[in-house]
Amino acid sequence: VPVDSLTVVLTISLPDQLAADLVGPLPPDVRVLLWDGDGAPPDGFAEVALYVARYTEAPPPRDALANAPALVAVQLLSAGVEPWLEAVPAGVLLCNGRGVHGSSTAELAVAGLLTLRRELPRFAAQQRAGVWQRAGTDDLFGARVLILGAGDIGATVGAAVRAFGAVPVLVGRTARDGVHALGELPGLVAGAAAVVLALPLTEQTRGLVDAQFLAALDDGTIVVNVARGALVHTDALLAELSAGRLRAFLDVTDPEPLPPGHPLWQAPNLVLTPHVGGGTRGWQRRAYALVREQILRMHAGQPLRNVVRDGF
Amino acid sequence: VPVDSLTVVLTISLPDQLAADLVGPLPPDVRVLLWDGDGAPPDGFAEVALYVARYTEAPPPRDALANAPALVAVQLLSAGVEPWLEAVPAGVLLCNGRGVHGSSTAELAVAGLLTLRRELPRFAAQQRAGVWQRAGTDDLFGARVLILGAGDIGATVGAAVRAFGAVPVLVGRTARDGVHALGELPGLVAGAAAVVLALPLTEQTRGLVDAQFLAALDDGTIVVNVARGALVHTDALLAELSAGRLRAFLDVTDPEPLPPGHPLWQAPNLVLTPHVGGGTRGWQRRAYALVREQILRMHAGQPLRNVVRDGF
Repeated sequence: VPVDSLTVVLTISLPDQLAADLVGPLPPDVRVLLWDGDGAPPDGFAEVALYVARYTEAPPPRDALANAPALVAVQLLSAGVEPWLEAVPAGVLLCNGRGVHGSSTAELAVAGLLTLRRELPRFAAQQRAGVWQRAGTDDLFGARVLILGAGDIGATVGAAVRAFGAVPVLVGRTARDGVHALGELPGLVAGAAAVVLALPLTEQTRGLVDAQFLAALDDGTIVVNVARGALVHTDALLAELSAGRLRAFLDVTDPEPLPPGHPLWQAPNLVLTPHVGGGTRGWQRRAYALVREQILRMHAGQPLRNVVRDGF
Repeated sequence: VPVDSLTVVLTISLPDQLAADLVGPLPPDVRVLLWDGDGAPPDGFAEVALYVARYTEAPPPRDALANAPALVAVQLLSAGVEPWLEAVPAGVLLCNGRGVHGSSTAELAVAGLLTLRRELPRFAAQQRAGVWQRAGTDDLFGARVLILGAGDIGATVGAAVRAFGAVPVLVGRTARDGVHALGELPGLVAGAAAVVLALPLTEQTRGLVDAQFLAALDDGTIVVNVARGALVHTDALLAELSAGRLRAFLDVTDPEPLPPGHPLWQAPNLVLTPHVGGGTRGWQRRAYALVREQILRMHAGQPLRNVVRDGF
């Protein structure tokens, strides 16, 4: 065995053995440590250049990353990065899981939108009661679906509802071809059959869907949030749901997890799922395919993908 | 007023005033009768050239149509035509509502597919109980979705699931570009994550989904029927649902309506809606836009659209 092949040139940290299995075989000069972020880092963590975090977990203690002198990049498996912005030391790249959850999160958004538009909770209650009672519902044909967030999740929602003859209207942080800017929202909300939230949580978007935003929506509009709970003023939405004026599908809430006894549990006109948009079984294959690509890029000295904050 | 404009050249029968309102203004030489198909036909029915039926109602007594000597065509608002094949006299065109229900029926098929794939009934039970409990579900990315029926409903389902990274496999009565023939089914069912039924009910398709067909499906496969109940052997499906081996979304059943106390009401792994795929509020606008077009075509001596059986 040549000496070169035994020299470790890249050390990475993966959360667990399943991750290592899904990443698959790596070049012999890549060393893999396993650390789930709890307790003390394992021996050799000081050599880690790429730290891959568990999905949607809190960051490890800041000291752990700050005391990894070789750290070049932190790879998250989530699209959202908020709790990590503080935890990742200056000088270290932060990469997210953009593309990993897009299709599954978009699926859940469309599932929630269709559930409400086609009144499936009503028919589920009839099924439980053993009652066959037809009723005409709305459909999406010709309906305007306002999609806030023009990343992969928003684009996928748009493509799916367009198949049904709906008219998706994409809104992003900045205007570009086929995408309106957030600043244009006041002129876009009236007449929308649904508003789908697929935006990152930033200081600009926190609380975007407040009482004033909701008041501008037509009666019966469906609000779908598959992004982050804090995009929405919970109390303002609760008031509209309780009044029967709006309907909502929430996969994320504020607070989250929703504590026992919170009034949202009993709110009418609401379908609630426990933040399961991205955490599908298939996401792990997609996530670790991305991680594998990042490892091989770093090994080859190529730039990483999905960099959301460079080191400086 | 010129005499010509007062001469009726075309008499049509619409089911009710709402239909007349949605059809809108017609040339002055078109006379509109209203008849919902119950009781005796109205005065003047002997002059009716185009009879437009109520949606998904049983045909009127055969005598009523046989005794309309001027009858040229019967226009249905449904995609299915079975009960009418006997009722419409020889020599009269039978036209269906193809295209009117496609998007809304496809919507419901995708809603049902996503509801089961993403396990929404489980999360609905958690919501009723006030419990936040995350769980990873499958998603559609990379999943094969077998779609039986390659008309507008099947094509729309295919386009929607393709947006989520699924692989739609279309199967029609005859093979053509991008569409397998029904005869190829035995080689296609294994490995499918879902089977969506969007086929017309014919002697060839009645009972197609029988015990043998179901046995060939992988464990956990989702069966979606938005077409006609009699495509599926109810007892064979019930056995697979009760065994926990398959899951199903049924918008149509055999028998239909499903009578009180029928075992399907209590079947596990089943989501049931009462044949509401096509009967959305929006369908009427689409339906009477088609009717208007047919009236104007007949008035202008042009061939009708959506002819499913010519007169001879």
